[in-house]
Amino acid sequence: MAKAKKKKLVYFFSGGKSEGKASMKEILGGKGANLAEMCSLGLPVPAGFTLTTEVCDLYYKLGRKYPADLAPQIDANIKKLEKDTGKTFGHGDNPLLVSVRSGAAVSMPGMMDTVLNLGLNDKTLPALIKLTGNERFAWDSYRRFMQMFGDVVLGMEHHDFEMALTKVKKARKAKDDTDLDADGLKAVVEEYKKVYKKARKSFPQDARKQLDQACDAVFSSWNNPRAIKYRQINEIRGLLGTAVNVQAMVYGNMGDTSGTGVAFTRNPSTGENKFYGEYLMNAQGEDVVAGIRTPNPIAQLAKVDRKSYKQLMAIRSKLEKHYKDVQDIEFTIEQGKLFMLQTRAGKRTAAAAVKCAIDMMKEGLITEKQAVLRVDPKALDQLLHPTFIPAAEKKAAAIAKGLPASPGAATGQVYFSAEAAELQAEMGKNVILVRIETSPEDIGGMNVAKGILTSRGGMTSHAAVVARGMGTCCVAGCGDCQINYKTKSFKAGGKTVKEGDWISLNGSLGTIYLGQVATEDPKLTGAFGTIMTLADKYRKMGVRTNADTPHDTAVAVKFGAEGIGLTRTEHMFFEGKRIISMRKMILAEDEAGRKKALKELLPLQRKDFVGIFKALKGLPATIRFLDPPLHEFVPHDAKGQAEMAKAMKVSPSQIKKKVESLHEFNPMLGHRGCRLGIYYPEITEMQARAVVEAAYAVPGSNAEIMIPLVGHVRELANQKQIVLDVIAQVKKEKKGKKAPKIKIGTMIEVPRGALTADEVAVEAEFFSFGTNDLTQMGCGFSRDDAGTFLGQYVEEGIYDADPFQVLDRSGVGQLVEIAVKKGRKTRPNIKLGICGEHGGDPSSVEFCHMVGLNYVSCSPYRVPIARLAAAQAAIKGPKGVLTKTGKKKK
Amino acid sequence: MAKAKKKKLVYFFSGGKSEGKASMKEILGGKGANLAEMCSLGLPVPAGFTLTTEVCDLYYKLGRKYPADLAPQIDANIKKLEKDTGKTFGHGDNPLLVSVRSGAAVSMPGMMDTVLNLGLNDKTLPALIKLTGNERFAWDSYRRFMQMFGDVVLGMEHHDFEMALTKVKKARKAKDDTDLDADGLKAVVEEYKKVYKKARKSFPQDARKQLDQACDAVFSSWNNPRAIKYRQINEIRGLLGTAVNVQAMVYGNMGDTSGTGVAFTRNPSTGENKFYGEYLMNAQGEDVVAGIRTPNPIAQLAKVDRKSYKQLMAIRSKLEKHYKDVQDIEFTIEQGKLFMLQTRAGKRTAAAAVKCAIDMMKEGLITEKQAVLRVDPKALDQLLHPTFIPAAEKKAAAIAKGLPASPGAATGQVYFSAEAAELQAEMGKNVILVRIETSPEDIGGMNVAKGILTSRGGMTSHAAVVARGMGTCCVAGCGDCQINYKTKSFKAGGKTVKEGDWISLNGSLGTIYLGQVATEDPKLTGAFGTIMTLADKYRKMGVRTNADTPHDTAVAVKFGAEGIGLTRTEHMFFEGKRIISMRKMILAEDEAGRKKALKELLPLQRKDFVGIFKALKGLPATIRFLDPPLHEFVPHDAKGQAEMAKAMKVSPSQIKKKVESLHEFNPMLGHRGCRLGIYYPEITEMQARAVVEAAYAVPGSNAEIMIPLVGHVRELANQKQIVLDVIAQVKKEKKGKKAPKIKIGTMIEVPRGALTADEVAVEAEFFSFGTNDLTQMGCGFSRDDAGTFLGQYVEEGIYDADPFQVLDRSGVGQLVEIAVKKGRKTRPNIKLGICGEHGGDPSSVEFCHMVGLNYVSCSPYRVPIARLAAAQAAIKGPKGVLTKTGKKKK
Repeated sequence: MAKAKKKKLVYFFSGGKSEGKASMKEILGGKGANLAEMCSLGLPVPAGFTLTTEVCDLYYKLGRKYPADLAPQIDANIKKLEKDTGKTFGHGDNPLLVSVRSGAAVSMPGMMDTVLNLGLNDKTLPALIKLTGNERFAWDSYRRFMQMFGDVVLGMEHHDFEMALTKVKKARKAKDDTDLDADGLKAVVEEYKKVYKKARKSFPQDARKQLDQACDAVFSSWNNPRAIKYRQINEIRGLLGTAVNVQAMVYGNMGDTSGTGVAFTRNPSTGENKFYGEYLMNAQGEDVVAGIRTPNPIAQLAKVDRKSYKQLMAIRSKLEKHYKDVQDIEFTIEQGKLFMLQTRAGKRTAAAAVKCAIDMMKEGLITEKQAVLRVDPKALDQLLHPTFIPAAEKKAAAIAKGLPASPGAATGQVYFSAEAAELQAEMGKNVILVRIETSPEDIGGMNVAKGILTSRGGMTSHAAVVARGMGTCCVAGCGDCQINYKTKSFKAGGKTVKEGDWISLNGSLGTIYLGQVATEDPKLTGAFGTIMTLADKYRKMGVRTNADTPHDTAVAVKFGAEGIGLTRTEHMFFEGKRIISMRKMILAEDEAGRKKALKELLPLQRKDFVGIFKALKGLPATIRFLDPPLHEFVPHDAKGQAEMAKAMKVSPSQIKKKVESLHEFNPMLGHRGCRLGIYYPEITEMQARAVVEAAYAVPGSNAEIMIPLVGHVRELANQKQIVLDVIAQVKKEKKGKKAPKIKIGTMIEVPRGALTADEVAVEAEFFSFGTNDLTQMGCGFSRDDAGTFLGQYVEEGIYDADPFQVLDRSGVGQLVEIAVKKGRKTRPNIKLGICGEHGGDPSSVEFCHMVGLNYVSCSPYRVPIARLAAAQAAIKGPKGVLTKTGKKKK
Repeated sequence: MAKAKKKKLVYFFSGGKSEGKASMKEILGGKGANLAEMCSLGLPVPAGFTLTTEVCDLYYKLGRKYPADLAPQIDANIKKLEKDTGKTFGHGDNPLLVSVRSGAAVSMPGMMDTVLNLGLNDKTLPALIKLTGNERFAWDSYRRFMQMFGDVVLGMEHHDFEMALTKVKKARKAKDDTDLDADGLKAVVEEYKKVYKKARKSFPQDARKQLDQACDAVFSSWNNPRAIKYRQINEIRGLLGTAVNVQAMVYGNMGDTSGTGVAFTRNPSTGENKFYGEYLMNAQGEDVVAGIRTPNPIAQLAKVDRKSYKQLMAIRSKLEKHYKDVQDIEFTIEQGKLFMLQTRAGKRTAAAAVKCAIDMMKEGLITEKQAVLRVDPKALDQLLHPTFIPAAEKKAAAIAKGLPASPGAATGQVYFSAEAAELQAEMGKNVILVRIETSPEDIGGMNVAKGILTSRGGMTSHAAVVARGMGTCCVAGCGDCQINYKTKSFKAGGKTVKEGDWISLNGSLGTIYLGQVATEDPKLTGAFGTIMTLADKYRKMGVRTNADTPHDTAVAVKFGAEGIGLTRTEHMFFEGKRIISMRKMILAEDEAGRKKALKELLPLQRKDFVGIFKALKGLPATIRFLDPPLHEFVPHDAKGQAEMAKAMKVSPSQIKKKVESLHEFNPMLGHRGCRLGIYYPEITEMQARAVVEAAYAVPGSNAEIMIPLVGHVRELANQKQIVLDVIAQVKKEKKGKKAPKIKIGTMIEVPRGALTADEVAVEAEFFSFGTNDLTQMGCGFSRDDAGTFLGQYVEEGIYDADPFQVLDRSGVGQLVEIAVKKGRKTRPNIKLGICGEHGGDPSSVEFCHMVGLNYVSCSPYRVPIARLAAAQAAIKGPKGVLTKTGKKKK
């Protein structure tokens, strides 16, 4: 431990004498670093010192022991503190009392331990009485300290202290704690001493020992279960540990000229540039939060203590100018004197974040680039969907919680089948579609529903993906809901919800409420528009959308999409009568039969593309040819098969046989994508003709035909030839007419396709990375099944995040990187994009920027998120080194 | 086509004047190159010239036209030939007659067209009569030419010529063709002219035109359907086309001093160093093959034509010395003068190949390395299994044909369930297990069966893989067999085979015979041993085996395995009562319940490992922990579930529910491999304990614990810690005893694992490439489903070969290469092997050598194949460039 001995482990802070600063968060923790910074700024901060996070790290590395050099450093700092305050620690006429607080680099409010009033003992108590002339206050401080020390440091039962307090209160007929006078509190201290004795714990009278034990407790609390859990949930990783701040006590409860408060330099809810906060006179910090007394709005402080209020306003301004951000502060007034106890960046709503960023930019506090970086792209989601009116939601009765699969809020009547949903929606009802899980056959019902609830499936289940694409609120995989199709009802939280009953869904949180909850529409304020304009100014990547209908396309274009990155043509085959033609094709015995059925689909498909081309007004549209295995188009239940048999005029057993013949053990790796087009060239022919004829019909159209699931360049070559033949043929038929722009490319979604991208690029004019499938095959995770264990994987830190939500840079990312390099090597001007779900995830968008993609594509409602994320990636600077697994993120 | 004009398109050959040579096969074809070579060697070869394969290539590239420069080159060569032979083409007293034969670089016997006697016309016929003094011969030659020309060149109906011939024969009361005299044959020519007239075809009298048209026909025949099919089946790719050999005719049918024959320089069946062949006097080549007359053994020629025989013997010796290989020759004797018409490397049986190689090495003809390269590793399979006695098989009645899934021959009585098979085998019967498809539950029955027949599944189906592992003969996926479990019978080829009936299987060909066919055991002759010793001398890679039982292990060690590369522990859980404990574990509600069930399995599993360690005598054993998803261990049918419920003492509905909860959409990418061990650490604990305790029990054991399906280093770290804990614990329990060698490593079978191999190698002491799964995920092919389209893929050349049989170098191979490089970078001494099915495929073994693996592992019966393939790869020289897709293999 030779190295550790030389290390500076304790940092002192006091007016003008701080050893630390704000940028040293990593080793001083957020609280400690900002206390030091405020001292340097000349703000009134009670002096103190910080034990670094490295002490915490060493504490665990040495098996819950400290480096030998720590104690002397603490001793030296206590001396400094004594000198600075003119007080003495643990003895003397003017005793030094301190608080001991945790503080990691990332805020973990309430997760770790705190001890106040440390330094009180049987000797310093009389001195405190003498000094303050307030016997009651002194005894109250002492009994609070004893209780806190026993509870927090020694692990004694909180309940035992409560019992002792109640005993005294009863004896003295005191109703509240405040009814006890100094004598009464003295009696409490005596009772507390008994509690210690009974528990065979000793309360140390030596202040230095008190401090050591308190530090122990705080460092230990770094790894208490709730702190560990908190870090897991909030994906906080790579920290050394917590720092410990030892700071001279100041008291807001020393009478009517004392007080305490918390405030934001601007309104954290709306972003309004107005001081915002609350205070209580004659109170301690916890009283403001506890809610026993109602705190007053901060503006009223001006009347009560004008001097302190003016001082606070000056500090507010100083802090904002210094930190160039909204600050969340804590202060205490001790007998008319103001002390700052904390400052940190203020948490805010998305709306506030946008407004503050733009306002501060206009005020000249921050630059345009800083303004763009100031808003969390993910948070924008809040601004793009209807939401519940907060007051209404607070009152609503939550009955279950599922996955927040597609954001927004929805209120409607429950229906359990797509047909019922469509019927009721036609009759003007607001429908919530409730299914155990959804399948492509449910598209119609999903399309008309205000919200979707499923009891099975994860964040990337069919319901979730489709709902996000539609911008429809969805709560998925809510295992608490027991859905019974037969009785048309579901049970959750002890309630039974029947067909037609009202429920409300919060798709951003996953909450399900009974009854109606009032919603409000998104307000796209001016600031929102400004931030988007700035984002567009700085981003280098294009942003497209995944859209299958003219309506979705129009929505996305409104949100700023610069084209379509993915049109899934298969969705088009489920609508209305199309599914019948599709099934005819599947059932056909030969090519002639298939061609006949495909002929029925041709004009419908062409109409789809005409609609999309028109909505795009010349923007490019990447159209993916048929991708899913054919079994997804046929019914798997007896009833559905009987209906299909009737419609097809064949026997149900024939249908059953066909459906069985289409069964695959691993359909994900089965007969789908371009493998279908190679097996049935007539399907590719039909789709190509629909695209080409539509392109002729809409002048200025800009079509990009995308062949899916290519793993080998020869697959693409095969399909490309078919498309080229159709293009040539239609050209002949349309002779004289100007030939439309049509590119042919492929989806890179099979690892082999990525690895051989140099070969694939010989045929492909563009690549679009299908990172959903690339993740499935690259990691070997079936999206439909991985739910069983992927949660545990993320919880245990085996994966940093669900790779279907956040692109797995070090694994799947390598495939993307390889394909980018090899693709460009063969064809320098190849257009590269991404159309997986990741296209709307900010971290993944950053990755796409780093590897040099030309554009990302995401569902319409995520387009603004992608625009902002792309801008942030560009501003953050040149292409960095991609994150490697194992290395800790800071 | 400027370039083409300058090209030499025609090569002349004649004694001492050949323009070509044997090494020019690629452009002269095999026949042409060897004719030129024989000329240069001074052997008597009728002179001629060869139109190169490049002409064929240009012919197709120019749209079935020839480069302008071809005709003058042909003219020049005809002149040379006229000069050389002293004959004139198409006119004159001594007319030059030629044969026109195809000949590609790779032999495609009978696939393309041939025209003989070209140059005959109404003018040259009288000259031929005069010259030979044999009117009948001349007319016979003419009518044969007319028929062949009409049939081959002009596409006329063969049948029409037959009818004309029959008409004349009837009129002249001739029974056979030979009964017709010159007059009769003259009449036939007249009739043939009528046939031409009727078909509105003209027979060209101009010899030069005859030649052009014949060349056309031969070049065209390169792409006739049967030639295309032949190349597909035999995986012949990358050839330019066929050459055309125009050669002066010689006649074996000019009387009793003429004759023709074919011979091998050594016995192609046994390898015996003895001239081996057949001849017929007064006959043409086709007569020897046609089988109308029985040819005589070559030795008899010594009596008939001593001079020619002696000359042949000298040529035999000269050719072997020159080519240093067994030659397959064709010769003709024209009126006592010997002519050589062909020589090529002789096809031989595996036994002959081995014997010839070793003999020639001993004779000093070839080096050791050449001897090793001389034997096709795949062919060794023939030598390692019992085979049918050829005569017996010839007589047997084939009723169906399936896939040759596991080589060898088997005769036995048919049983339709694993239970019945086991029962009957115990009673001493030879059992053939017949199933629609097999599952792990059938292991017991498969283990005792002499042969296995399934009607469903491909070359890598469960039945095929397991049977190859066991070395049991297996015919899989025989769709012709309609198996009915209810009636305990199957139908095939119009026959019904009932339980207990005898059938015989040829697993090397896929044939199924009714009744018993006599078999013989493999004879591992001395030459076989010698070639294996030589292989071991030259190979650089180790060869291990995939084995799950002490018996298989012992077999493999006998075949030269240097350890186990893969023990699949899951197979061990199906035997006898184990499946009950396994199911108890699966059904358990909590960890305690699972641990209880696992405790029952521990001693059994430990015993397995003790047996394997003992069989290995200190050789290393890679033991893979539980890999398949749990649903594979539970019954999916109602009957099985009822039985399980009874055994478990729970309700059948509970079982059904559990089985349903285990269902996965894509089990291949589901909850399996290390994901199980992470979810249920107690399984890993039990397996680790079984290995470690067994290792203590067998001194000198050498265990390598392999964690499957690792995609992320943290998965391995998690499982490794469990194993290390168990090792430490057992060490404590066994204190004093010497700790056994135990390594911990992983299978690289998930693309992500390969891509992040540098990280995985931090934890792994070895990698074993699971190329089956790596292919599934890398190419996105489900092994169980890809049968639908993979056949078409290979047929259409999208993949060069089934990637599950031959490792896909340019795709999956890249993953292996990346992992090798990255793994060694982190841990230079990391041990690298392969344990997928590819470990026994010669091409894949070569690849493994090229990327620098330490060993390959394959099923016991493929160990000798892998040894030889590894040696060949090492001899072929330094690491070459890996094959790239798109580049043509030569």
